[in-house]
Amino acid sequence: MVKRCACEEEVLQRIRPTPEERMYIHAVAGRLIEAIEESGMAQAMMVGSVARNTFVRGDRDLDIFLLFDPSLSREELVERGLGLARKVAAAFGAPYREKYAEHPYLSVRINALDVDLVPCYAVSHATEIQSAVDRTPFHTRYIQQHIGGLSDDVLLIKQFAKAGGVYGSDHMTEGFSGYLCELLAIYYGGFSPLLEAASRWKPGTIIDIERHAAQSFDDPLVVIDPVDPGRNVAAALSCTRMFEFVELARGYMEDPAEEFFFPPPRKPFSRPDFIEVLARRKTTLLALTFATPDYTPDTVVPQLRKSAQAIRDLLERSEYPVNRSDVCMREDRSMLLFELLTGELPAVRRHFGPPLWAPVNSAKFAAKYLQKDVFSGPYIEGGRYVVEIARPFTRARDLLESPSLLDVSLGRHVRQSMEIGWTVDEGEGCWDDEFASFIGEFLQHSSPLSRIRRR
Amino acid sequence: MVKRCACEEEVLQRIRPTPEERMYIHAVAGRLIEAIEESGMAQAMMVGSVARNTFVRGDRDLDIFLLFDPSLSREELVERGLGLARKVAAAFGAPYREKYAEHPYLSVRINALDVDLVPCYAVSHATEIQSAVDRTPFHTRYIQQHIGGLSDDVLLIKQFAKAGGVYGSDHMTEGFSGYLCELLAIYYGGFSPLLEAASRWKPGTIIDIERHAAQSFDDPLVVIDPVDPGRNVAAALSCTRMFEFVELARGYMEDPAEEFFFPPPRKPFSRPDFIEVLARRKTTLLALTFATPDYTPDTVVPQLRKSAQAIRDLLERSEYPVNRSDVCMREDRSMLLFELLTGELPAVRRHFGPPLWAPVNSAKFAAKYLQKDVFSGPYIEGGRYVVEIARPFTRARDLLESPSLLDVSLGRHVRQSMEIGWTVDEGEGCWDDEFASFIGEFLQHSSPLSRIRRR
Repeated sequence: MVKRCACEEEVLQRIRPTPEERMYIHAVAGRLIEAIEESGMAQAMMVGSVARNTFVRGDRDLDIFLLFDPSLSREELVERGLGLARKVAAAFGAPYREKYAEHPYLSVRINALDVDLVPCYAVSHATEIQSAVDRTPFHTRYIQQHIGGLSDDVLLIKQFAKAGGVYGSDHMTEGFSGYLCELLAIYYGGFSPLLEAASRWKPGTIIDIERHAAQSFDDPLVVIDPVDPGRNVAAALSCTRMFEFVELARGYMEDPAEEFFFPPPRKPFSRPDFIEVLARRKTTLLALTFATPDYTPDTVVPQLRKSAQAIRDLLERSEYPVNRSDVCMREDRSMLLFELLTGELPAVRRHFGPPLWAPVNSAKFAAKYLQKDVFSGPYIEGGRYVVEIARPFTRARDLLESPSLLDVSLGRHVRQSMEIGWTVDEGEGCWDDEFASFIGEFLQHSSPLSRIRRR
Repeated sequence: MVKRCACEEEVLQRIRPTPEERMYIHAVAGRLIEAIEESGMAQAMMVGSVARNTFVRGDRDLDIFLLFDPSLSREELVERGLGLARKVAAAFGAPYREKYAEHPYLSVRINALDVDLVPCYAVSHATEIQSAVDRTPFHTRYIQQHIGGLSDDVLLIKQFAKAGGVYGSDHMTEGFSGYLCELLAIYYGGFSPLLEAASRWKPGTIIDIERHAAQSFDDPLVVIDPVDPGRNVAAALSCTRMFEFVELARGYMEDPAEEFFFPPPRKPFSRPDFIEVLARRKTTLLALTFATPDYTPDTVVPQLRKSAQAIRDLLERSEYPVNRSDVCMREDRSMLLFELLTGELPAVRRHFGPPLWAPVNSAKFAAKYLQKDVFSGPYIEGGRYVVEIARPFTRARDLLESPSLLDVSLGRHVRQSMEIGWTVDEGEGCWDDEFASFIGEFLQHSSPLSRIRRR
C-alpha cells in the first residue's frame, strides 16, 4: 500500500468522484450503449477517463464510441454513425450539436452530462487505424488492464498538472494529456514515484513501457504508445511545459502543500496595475488585434503562433529588438503581443546589394543608388555592395500598421481574418479588458513554482 | 608595342622618374654598395622598386641589403650587420636611426633620399630563408629577370591603386603590395590586360605563374610567390580592397579618365559638415580615444581592429544595435568609432539561467532571483530559466565608460594604453580636429568608384 501524506489524502477527498456521481454516469453510459447496440448497426464502447476510472470529480465528460465495420467507406461511416447518434440522442430527448475534430461526432447534453457520441472503425489492431479516433478504444482497454490500484494516483497527477497549468495536450497548453498522466502513473508506479523520477528528467527522456519502439523521436519527452510502437504519446508536450512540471515536482517534494493542487485564485490584473508595470518596464508594448478565425483552437492557435513568429522576424529584420512576444485566442478576438526594447529607430539603415562578382547586378545596384540621396555608400564590405538608405518605418508601430504586414508568412486563416482588418495599439493603448489576464501574465511572466513561492 | 590611351601617356609623363632622378639614385646606391663590399664582411645588393626599375617619381626609398654568411648566429648577424651599416652611414656623414621590423635595420638619410640598410642572410634558395627579409633579394632578382618591357605598366598599376586607396599591404590598408603589382603586370601582360582580367575576378582567384603551388589558401586572391611555392603574395589583401580594385577597373574601362590616377583633393570635412551629417543621420555616435601604443602601425592597427570588434560584440551582447564601427591610428592618439541605432535602452533585460536539468544550479538561480526585485520571472523557456532584471547600463556611453570595458579581449598594447585611461565622447562631442578626415570618411563612407562618379 502506498503511503500518502496528509495533504494528498485531503486532496483526494476533494477530487475523488463520489460513489453517487460514478454510479450515475455509468448508468447513463449503460443506457446509451444499450440503445446503440440494439440498433444492430454498431458495437458501442465507453472510453475516456470515466471508462478508465481516472476522472476527477466534476469532470463529467462521457465519451461513447460507436464502432463500425472497417469495410465501410468513410462517407458511409460518417452518414450511418451520425445518423445513429442522432437517433439515440432523440430517443433520450437530449439536445445535440454536430462537431468536427478529425472525425465528425455528435455532442449531446444529457442532464448535467456532456456526452460525445463518436463513430469510428472497429479495427483489430491499433496499428491498423484509419484515423486517430480509432485508436482511443485501444487506449481505454490498455489503461483498464494496467491501471490496477493506481486510480487515485492518476487523480493526484492530473490535479497537480492542472493546478500547475501544464495539463492538456491542446496547442495552447502544450502540456500533459490525460492518457499521458495515466501511462506515467503506470510506468513509475504512482504519484510520488513519478515526481521523484521527473525531478531527474532531462530532455530526450524515453519511456517505452512495452519495449517495442518502432522509431526514434526528437521530442523532449518520449513516451512510446503501448498500443502503437510508432507514436509518441508526449509529442504535444513542449520543453517549457515539461520542465515546469519538473520544477513543480522538485518544489512539491521539498515542501508538499495543498497549494500545488489548489492554487489560490490569482489577483486580477487591472488597468492601474498595467499602467504601473508599463511605467516601470519602460519598454514599447505593441498589441495587434483581429477577429478570431472561425475554427477550433487547435487550428487557430498554431496559426497565431506562426503569425507572431513571422511578425517578430519582420521586426527583428527591421532592427527593432524584441524582448518577448505571445499570443492569445479569445472567442471573438485574438491578440498578438510584442514587447520591444525600442519602438523608434533613426532613419539610417544598411541595405545589402549584390556581390561585386555579379558584374551586371552590382553595376545596376551602384548606378541606382548613385542617383539617389543616400546616407552613405554605395560602399564595399567583404566584396558586397552596401548602401545606407532611409528606413521605411522609423516607428515599429507604423511597420505593424502597414499593409505589407500581410506579406509575411501568417497562418492561412489568420491572414484571411487580417485581410478584413486589424488594430495596432501601443503602450497604455494596448489595455483591453477582454485580454486583461493575458496581458497580466505576459508582463508578470513567472514559472508556476515561482508563483507559489512568491505568495 | 602596347597601345595606350592619351590619358595613360599623360599619366606616365607625370609619374615616370626623370633620367636625372634615376641616375642620381643609382649613383648613391653604387657608392653604398662599394663601401659595404670594401669592408669584406658582406655582399651588398640593391633591392626594392629602384632596383627593379618600377619606382614612381618622387618615391625615393632606396633599399640596400647586406648579405651575410648564413652560418652566422642571429646575434652575430645583428651585431655585425648593424655595426657595418653604422660605419657606412658615418662614412657618408649621414644621420641614421635604428629601426625594428622583423629584423633590426638602419634607416639613413642621404641628401633627399631615405635609405634602409638591412642585414640579412645570403641563402641559396628562397625556401631556406631564416626570416622574411632574406626573401627580398629573390623577389628583386625574379622581377629583374621577368619585368621585360612592363616597367611603365607597373607604374600605371601602382599609381592607379594608390589613387584608389588600395595600394599598400600594411594592416591599415590591407591592399596591394608593390611586389604584387609587379607580379600581376607580368602575369597578365600589362596594365590594360590586368584591368580586363580583374573585372572578372571572383573570390578565390588563383594565380600561379610558376605553376608550383605547394599548398592551398583561403584568401580571396591567391598569388603564389614565384620564388616560394608555400607563400601567397596577396595574403594581406582583404576582400573589400580586392573588390574596390575590381570596381575601379570596371569603371576605368568604361570611362578612362585621369581622375583614376590623380583624384582631385578631397574637400576637407569640417565641424559644421559633421554637425549637419549627424543631425541628418540621427544615430548615436560614440568615440573612444586613448594614447596610441608606442609600436609600429603593423603591430597597433590589428590590435585596434581586434579591440573594436570586442567592444562591438559587448555592445551587441548588451543589445545596443551597432550600425558600423571603425578604427584610426594617429601619431599620438587612436580612436575607435561606433555608430549605434540607439544609445539608450529600457532597464528590462532578459538574463538566461541554467537549464532545469542541472538541478543544483537551477535551484540556486531560482532561489536567488525569487528574493530580488525583478521585472519578470524566473520563468522557463525551452527548459532554461530566464529572469528579467535591470540592465546595468541603460546608456551605451556609460557601458563604454565603465572599467569593465577592460575585461573584453582588447589587443595587448591597446589594453596597456587603456589601463592608463581613455575618453568616451558622444554625438557632437566626438568631433576632434586630429581625426576630422577619419570621421568624415566614416560618416560619408563610399567606395572609390562611387566617389569618382559622384563628383
